[in-house]
Amino acid sequence: MKHGVAFLVMLFSVQAEAAPDPARFLWRALSERGAYARAVRLADEVGARLAGSPAAERAVAWALAEMKAIGLENVRTEPVTVEAWSRGADDRVELVAPYKRRLRALALGRSPGTVAGGVSAEVIEVSSFEALRKLDVRGKIVFFNHAMRRSRDFEQYGTVGELRFQGAIEAGRAGAVAALVRSVGTGSHRLPHTGATGYDPKVAAIPFAALAAEDAELLHRALGRGKAQVALNLGCGMRGPIKSSNVVGELRGRGKPDEIVLLGAHLDSWDVGDGALDDGAGVGIVLETARLLKELRPQRTVRIVLYMNEEYGLSGAKAYAVAHAAELPRHIAAMESDSGAGVPLGFAMPGIEAARSIVRGLARPLAALGSSEVTAADEIGADLIPVHQAGVPVVGLQQDVSDYFEWHHTDGDTADKIDPEAISRASAAFAFMAAQLADSVEKLPRFVPPKND
Amino acid sequence: MKHGVAFLVMLFSVQAEAAPDPARFLWRALSERGAYARAVRLADEVGARLAGSPAAERAVAWALAEMKAIGLENVRTEPVTVEAWSRGADDRVELVAPYKRRLRALALGRSPGTVAGGVSAEVIEVSSFEALRKLDVRGKIVFFNHAMRRSRDFEQYGTVGELRFQGAIEAGRAGAVAALVRSVGTGSHRLPHTGATGYDPKVAAIPFAALAAEDAELLHRALGRGKAQVALNLGCGMRGPIKSSNVVGELRGRGKPDEIVLLGAHLDSWDVGDGALDDGAGVGIVLETARLLKELRPQRTVRIVLYMNEEYGLSGAKAYAVAHAAELPRHIAAMESDSGAGVPLGFAMPGIEAARSIVRGLARPLAALGSSEVTAADEIGADLIPVHQAGVPVVGLQQDVSDYFEWHHTDGDTADKIDPEAISRASAAFAFMAAQLADSVEKLPRFVPPKND
Repeated sequence: MKHGVAFLVMLFSVQAEAAPDPARFLWRALSERGAYARAVRLADEVGARLAGSPAAERAVAWALAEMKAIGLENVRTEPVTVEAWSRGADDRVELVAPYKRRLRALALGRSPGTVAGGVSAEVIEVSSFEALRKLDVRGKIVFFNHAMRRSRDFEQYGTVGELRFQGAIEAGRAGAVAALVRSVGTGSHRLPHTGATGYDPKVAAIPFAALAAEDAELLHRALGRGKAQVALNLGCGMRGPIKSSNVVGELRGRGKPDEIVLLGAHLDSWDVGDGALDDGAGVGIVLETARLLKELRPQRTVRIVLYMNEEYGLSGAKAYAVAHAAELPRHIAAMESDSGAGVPLGFAMPGIEAARSIVRGLARPLAALGSSEVTAADEIGADLIPVHQAGVPVVGLQQDVSDYFEWHHTDGDTADKIDPEAISRASAAFAFMAAQLADSVEKLPRFVPPKND
Repeated sequence: MKHGVAFLVMLFSVQAEAAPDPARFLWRALSERGAYARAVRLADEVGARLAGSPAAERAVAWALAEMKAIGLENVRTEPVTVEAWSRGADDRVELVAPYKRRLRALALGRSPGTVAGGVSAEVIEVSSFEALRKLDVRGKIVFFNHAMRRSRDFEQYGTVGELRFQGAIEAGRAGAVAALVRSVGTGSHRLPHTGATGYDPKVAAIPFAALAAEDAELLHRALGRGKAQVALNLGCGMRGPIKSSNVVGELRGRGKPDEIVLLGAHLDSWDVGDGALDDGAGVGIVLETARLLKELRPQRTVRIVLYMNEEYGLSGAKAYAVAHAAELPRHIAAMESDSGAGVPLGFAMPGIEAARSIVRGLARPLAALGSSEVTAADEIGADLIPVHQAGVPVVGLQQDVSDYFEWHHTDGDTADKIDPEAISRASAAFAFMAAQLADSVEKLPRFVPPKND
């Protein structure tokens, strides 16, 4: 514990307007480590839990039991239809010329499988969509090769990530028969990073897989010696609708029960790794926040939502916004924890400065944790997009993600990657802001989405 | 290149007794990077090449072609019988209680498979053989859990490695039905480290597998909550004799062609990864040394031997010692390169101080590379054990292995893990010592093995 007596003194001296006894609250949040314990248990006991899989339903049962054990009210599932995608048993990506090598690869979420017998073609390497547009790739396999740099924020994921998010559309539009992308991640652990990719109904959907960094470099070296041919055999694909659930629990507000503060994380993960950082950490943080808030008994109702299928469909997020449409005007704020287990740096709040100014006041006691800065960055958690677009003010906890993309969406996203000290700090900052939002006298102005967003 | 003009000046000022123009020689060895290029090509073009597999025979063909391209004389294969071991297609290690989780594991080399239907039993965790001997593990699965620390030398591999080398014997003797070991390696990449294990004909052979560090920790946490049960289904096993080869080439000595300096590395690798560090790096270093020595035309004959099946049988090493028994008295020195691609630190030479003293003189010009120290450490390369026991003086290049055990025997042992600068320095030190041994006037005293070794 790095923040001992000096930290407590500082907290007492800048006590917030409404939340009772922030020093005691924050000290408990930092020292009891319930976020860590819950994240590890979810990762260990359930492990990978792809939306649409039986493991995802085990995660639903786990979450219901946890919420009941904490003593939340109205603990329930809410129905979500998942348009399921899954990987095949025998995905293979192989370099077949100039020499034969199996490449470590993972099909990307939403990718169709290949036709029977697979697809085999010459590979054309590009590092950007601009470069792609200058080439004739008809009948070829496009290989997007652009290494991601480590960064404390999501900037690299946003920019380099475009190659994964839009690569199948861009390559498909150009006439390619398949596409490969160097894993969007900073690791070199011979572990490919999967993730969702987008398709455009107006463009033929082509198979799309991510290569481990090592295999991207092997393919790059092979191309340096001349032409290279790759064969893809992917058994993945969309499997049709499957019934699943969000898991919801509440703490009824002591003074303003009709006003809701929404706290979210997502219960599903990818089918590789144990979903420890993504998003076991967030589930742990949100459940621990609920446990702490229960004893505070804030003015407003706090609603915990653990969403299903953040990863490749936002199915639970969309279902929540539809089912609770009539209630959204009474959602006075929302937070999601979905940025791993790194230390807290501050809060992100897109929209008008007046809203940030209020949050800045609420965050002030967190200066001692180095997390009182409030910016306009667009890092709010994907599950909150639908309610945000409906006007709900969203406060995003910003965390240091320097290590997050080492393991993001890989088989190495396991419990040992969570640093107990770091997640405890993130959890404390998250819980403190949640308490402030649930108790503050001042209300945040509603979010007005930009016209062309 | 870190050693420019100052380095050259230093070399000229301490010119060695016999090797012609060491400055020019070392400068070429450092700057032309042939070891790096060859190691990468072997890893990329052949990849994993387990002894007994078709890929190992592709490596034999690759090596023959390389030796001929360099212009070695008497390039040939020499017969080796490999008592083949291989992994099954469907190895599975699963935690079945207190919850079900698949554990990332690799059967260890020489391990038998499990009986049909597998073996499932309670797990008993120990961190040492001493701890094991105090427990009743009859009918149980023993889990050796001891984390390896990073180290510049092989000390940790020797000590922690004992759990892998002897674990099946110790656990089998105690009545266990199977054994698991935390991977002997320093990585946390969700990649198990395989490797050979020993069996004693007097003890029932039990199945033995290595867990990835992450999965060892998961199992440890599960055991922290009570009893844990694991099921092993291993399809591995010994497959009987398969004909394979060492690959041999020579540079006939200009003045003393009957005196032989033996330079070795091993051609085989494990069946995971690309055998880049282990031992593509060594193959690259030895072939590059041959290329450089060809132009020096040393006094003695230099014989390059690329051994088959260092990894789980020393088959090629034993075959060489038998086939060349009559010649061994004329082997005046031997070196092997099998410690990865790290920077050179000096030389190891077990035996009498008089021999080390001579080697110290030969190594003096390497002070500029930080690799002139000569110690009595027992790091000589396993393939040289048979000839060493027959009296051949062995000079081992010591390299910094701090990073080596991150990837050793894992799927992450790929070409990108070789640092071109570091392997060039190791290659230069190796080639320089080889040149000195092939040209030196003084002869090393023969090695006299300790009586009870």
